[in-house]
Amino acid sequence: MWMNAFTDTKRPRDFFSNGVPCINPDHVLASHFATFALSKPGNMNQFNFNVTLTNTNNLPGLNTLGLVLARIDIAVNGLVPPHAHPRASEVTILLEGSLLVGFVDTSNRLYTQQLRPGECFVFPKGLIHFLYNTDLMKPALAVSGLSSQNPGAQISSVATFISNPQMPDDVLKKGFK
Amino acid sequence: MWMNAFTDTKRPRDFFSNGVPCINPDHVLASHFATFALSKPGNMNQFNFNVTLTNTNNLPGLNTLGLVLARIDIAVNGLVPPHAHPRASEVTILLEGSLLVGFVDTSNRLYTQQLRPGECFVFPKGLIHFLYNTDLMKPALAVSGLSSQNPGAQISSVATFISNPQMPDDVLKKGFK
Amino acid sequence: MWMNAFTDTKRPRDFFSNGVPCINPDHVLASHFATFALSKPGNMNQFNFNVTLTNTNNLPGLNTLGLVLARIDIAVNGLVPPHAHPRASEVTILLEGSLLVGFVDTSNRLYTQQLRPGECFVFPKGLIHFLYNTDLMKPALAVSGLSSQNPGAQISSVATFISNPQMPDDVLKKGFK
Amino acid sequence: MWMNAFTDTKRPRDFFSNGVPCINPDHVLASHFATFALSKPGNMNQFNFNVTLTNTNNLPGLNTLGLVLARIDIAVNGLVPPHAHPRASEVTILLEGSLLVGFVDTSNRLYTQQLRPGECFVFPKGLIHFLYNTDLMKPALAVSGLSSQNPGAQISSVATFISNPQMPDDVLKKGFK
Amino acid sequence: MWMNAFTDTKRPRDFFSNGVPCINPDHVLASHFATFALSKPGNMNQFNFNVTLTNTNNLPGLNTLGLVLARIDIAVNGLVPPHAHPRASEVTILLEGSLLVGFVDTSNRLYTQQLRPGECFVFPKGLIHFLYNTDLMKPALAVSGLSSQNPGAQISSVATFISNPQMPDDVLKKGFK
Amino acid sequence: MWMNAFTDTKRPRDFFSNGVPCINPDHVLASHFATFALSKPGNMNQFNFNVTLTNTNNLPGLNTLGLVLARIDIAVNGLVPPHAHPRASEVTILLEGSLLVGFVDTSNRLYTQQLRPGECFVFPKGLIHFLYNTDLMKPALAVSGLSSQNPGAQISSVATFISNPQMPDDVLKKGFK
Repeated sequence: MWMNAFTDTKRPRDFFSNGVPCINPDHVLASHFATFALSKPGNMNQFNFNVTLTNTNNLPGLNTLGLVLARIDIAVNGLVPPHAHPRASEVTILLEGSLLVGFVDTSNRLYTQQLRPGECFVFPKGLIHFLYNTDLMKPALAVSGLSSQNPGAQISSVATFISNPQMPDDVLKKGFK
Repeated sequence: MWMNAFTDTKRPRDFFSNGVPCINPDHVLASHFATFALSKPGNMNQFNFNVTLTNTNNLPGLNTLGLVLARIDIAVNGLVPPHAHPRASEVTILLEGSLLVGFVDTSNRLYTQQLRPGECFVFPKGLIHFLYNTDLMKPALAVSGLSSQNPGAQISSVATFISNPQMPDDVLKKGFK
Repeated sequence: MWMNAFTDTKRPRDFFSNGVPCINPDHVLASHFATFALSKPGNMNQFNFNVTLTNTNNLPGLNTLGLVLARIDIAVNGLVPPHAHPRASEVTILLEGSLLVGFVDTSNRLYTQQLRPGECFVFPKGLIHFLYNTDLMKPALAVSGLSSQNPGAQISSVATFISNPQMPDDVLKKGFK
Repeated sequence: MWMNAFTDTKRPRDFFSNGVPCINPDHVLASHFATFALSKPGNMNQFNFNVTLTNTNNLPGLNTLGLVLARIDIAVNGLVPPHAHPRASEVTILLEGSLLVGFVDTSNRLYTQQLRPGECFVFPKGLIHFLYNTDLMKPALAVSGLSSQNPGAQISSVATFISNPQMPDDVLKKGFK
Repeated sequence: MWMNAFTDTKRPRDFFSNGVPCINPDHVLASHFATFALSKPGNMNQFNFNVTLTNTNNLPGLNTLGLVLARIDIAVNGLVPPHAHPRASEVTILLEGSLLVGFVDTSNRLYTQQLRPGECFVFPKGLIHFLYNTDLMKPALAVSGLSSQNPGAQISSVATFISNPQMPDDVLKKGFK
Repeated sequence: MWMNAFTDTKRPRDFFSNGVPCINPDHVLASHFATFALSKPGNMNQFNFNVTLTNTNNLPGLNTLGLVLARIDIAVNGLVPPHAHPRASEVTILLEGSLLVGFVDTSNRLYTQQLRPGECFVFPKGLIHFLYNTDLMKPALAVSGLSSQNPGAQISSVATFISNPQMPDDVLKKGFK
């Protein structure tokens, strides 16, 4: 048969890859490669933004492929505050609105740019960056590609000031004089 | 000074990475991390589509980061014909219009889905896939993340039937009976 | 004891790597690192060729090592039709017979060569390539190394024209005018 | 000759790897694989600590090998303030003194431990962490391995509050209410 | 909630990574990132040395992070005999005593150095190297970083002359004339 | 034009990858992907074997692809003595003659097998292994795939006993009692 023109590795029943179980090949559906997870903005948080990522739950077919998409919604005056992705670089395209974006390199130099719709910006792996909606009228909508199956994110202010449990007082006082 | 709190590797003048020369750190600008390359559709080809990628020319800051964004425009009745990216997986989000998409796995099974705006679809690395605008009225607009600095693309019909020079007749006859 | 000169990581009973369960170290045998899978030609398919790969079933010791060997037999007038390996580069050495080989790069340029026994040829990762036995009398025998534990293969004509289910008619018509 | 028992790839004169030029093999010395860079504490900064890393300048033989060592000195009451390494995980062994260490994961949970001499602690890649000398009398001395040739470091407070140029006021106000 | 500012990949209960089961995120403790495994010398072997490594048993938080630390104790006149780490490069810092170290490259050239406390030395991946305590009075103490979660080690003399079972006599006679 | 259906990254004139300069794309020939380097046995050395590898000199098209092929000739009574490849795993297929092969794992266990023509054997990355022609009449011929562009090789006896300069006497005496 055609399928045997080349002999592929047969995978056992219990197939794990990158820590997430692979679906039995006999049960894979086209729907495992599609998702509506990014089709709506989601709820704004206290910073007035929402980021939704594809992941191996809402898009099982992404497992082991090493990238995700993110939908970023930022309300008027909203801010994705300074944060970093410990395991991914990010490229963002602004679809609607107007964003002031920037990242800081390891020499503490700030690279900042005012984005207009259609413009892309790069946030190199692990560096602190922000996206700020400077428009007084319109929410901003952007889409990002991230170079990891599980990029993770740490908002600098949240991770340092309201972690659970809290960082020791001395660490905060000395670290943020 | 602050910049010396940690001692980074100093890079020499002639700095190459992934084959593309890195910019002298003293001359890096915020504009090297931004691009308008994806802000407009570009010219349609004979299949009635256009794909534009960020790359290390239009977005030098992407060098070594391992991903790109692509803008995909497909005219009414247009088709991104069956093709594969030899060095990247792809996740696509449909922004406007309506697309029939699909890929074929190494067992020649076809996974296909009718995408609506906001829906994402995954094309695993190196597998033949297509995007077809089934809408009779509206062009389609999509954005993709790809997991390589230089994904490459091969349209199956072009690579096999109109390569330069042509594949030997016997190869084509026997290969596509 | 000698074995403790250095303290290695102890692995738990249920040890998975690259999705395939590793064998309990106490049960590993030398035979897990040897195979006769490539010692015979196998059955020719309708293209008059047969490719057999080592894999983690016939050669469990290959698990996680990132390469395989392949035996390629091509009958008189037989063709390994234009195909690509989505996850591997390939280097082939012709052992017997005479082969016309070639691959197409992402600019649709064809690189082709008539191989004689002892000659090697490179097929870069993910690019469409073919191997054609131009000898009227002798079958060809070749051995390839591939740079992945699970290279996969897609024959362009099969994947596009006789996938299961079939690609939509319009996609095929427009893609292969 | 013995040297030809196996035929290695010959490298051309101008040999680059990871952006740093490799030394001409004919000129490599044993001293290229040794360094005194970590033998002394270096000058304390305003946080009362000093970190010195091996790198491809002080230890050219490290080029392409994917790890470095760091010497960490923290004066009495000194703090390596919350910071992250964008390109490396870190394992630290405390040699002298007493350190309170901790990191915050991507769910903002803090993992903290009081280290005694001889104890090791792990800081996973890209996550914010700190090292605080809680001893009132003795400076602390630690050695770390980091999993990158060029780990980089960002002190959260410095990168956000005194970058060059400064982050926009609104970003700081909204990000650190 | 703060924790939901970004939506991370949710991991299933049975989470494997690099063959070692990850700990259920709800049960992770700070102690999983700390270890006293390197705080004491361990027992000397017949070569008068002891090497202790962090690993995923004594330091579960290291899983998937790609590096370990090692503590190396070498008694007076002791030798870590010529050996290689099949999966890791190593950088060593001498803390106490005096060591003669060296490695042999693939052209059989020996790079050797007499280390004093505070000095670092690099042993590139997979190459045969040794550490010899040339001091007549003091034991040596060193710490190494290694660029793999599971570096492994093979002492050349042990692996070749007292393997289990033994190498065939002819192999040893011809190989070590 | 067809070549522009997708827009690839344009590479600059001086294009380096993995330390070896890439050929200007305008000057690439099919012959850069073919080689006769493995077509003949080469000269036997004092162990009565010869190994020839493809490399970026005799096969420039292999640059960056991460694997090579090797031709192994072993005369009657010849031995490829215990050696290791610091940067590659190896899979060997015996084409002619009869070979006794084996490798030693990091617990000093020997895995050995008598190979007949057509049989394959795996040598995991960095582990000491040998190939011995036990046939009294026929030379052996084998082909290997290795999982690196530059695998390197160290013959244990040569690297330890006749390095240049020699290892110190004490190291050899203590290491090989």
